[in-house]
Amino acid sequence: MTPEKTIEAPAQRHVWYPEREDITIYGVLAALSDPTRLEVVRTLAQCPERCPFEFLNVTSKQNLAHHFKVLREAGLIQARYEGRNKFVWLRRDIIDDMFPGLLDGLLHAADVSDPRPTAAT
Amino acid sequence: MTPEKTIEAPAQRHVWYPEREDITIYGVLAALSDPTRLEVVRTLAQCPERCPFEFLNVTSKQNLAHHFKVLREAGLIQARYEGRNKFVWLRRDIIDDMFPGLLDGLLHAADVSDPRPTAAT
Repeated sequence: MTPEKTIEAPAQRHVWYPEREDITIYGVLAALSDPTRLEVVRTLAQCPERCPFEFLNVTSKQNLAHHFKVLREAGLIQARYEGRNKFVWLRRDIIDDMFPGLLDGLLHAADVSDPRPTAAT
Repeated sequence: MTPEKTIEAPAQRHVWYPEREDITIYGVLAALSDPTRLEVVRTLAQCPERCPFEFLNVTSKQNLAHHFKVLREAGLIQARYEGRNKFVWLRRDIIDDMFPGLLDGLLHAADVSDPRPTAAT
């Protein structure tokens, strides 16, 4: 119901993103060792980008903000703003480059051990 | 220098091992999100079994006991006693069966991102 907006982003957000040298396999594994965060990453792996509110069926808004922060600080996700809308995506390029095979193996294992009843669309 | 012994194990150890249904991908990822534990698993992945003291170059005996406990409770390792000697091994069979591709992808990624200077022998 929200009309399309072309206004500026609400404010310049000073959000920290890790540089490549700050991203570690330990941080990535720790970030993914949580059911909600793994669920978010599994969904993001299926699509170019998503609005965070699409994950509100997974957990509360407050919890979601925390989980996105953990994923962002681990180097796993990135966000952009388009007007007042926020979009997040999986930083698959850098993770696959730094840790080749990690996400593929992990996502495959997650799919086998916990098949999704319905594909997110 | 220690002569071969055929005596009984020092005492029956009541050590808890998770059943298959207790093993989760979250527990496995959390266990592997630590540098020492990932190092232990990388070494165990290269050989059938190891004596724990072989890892004393990685960390102290006390720390090692903690890390082995975390790995054991996550379902990643198992131990057996032969006389007074303890041997540990990676439970690759159950992990690969439950989470196919997980360990392969993870170990490959670890090897690429942090190549081992010398192969453990």
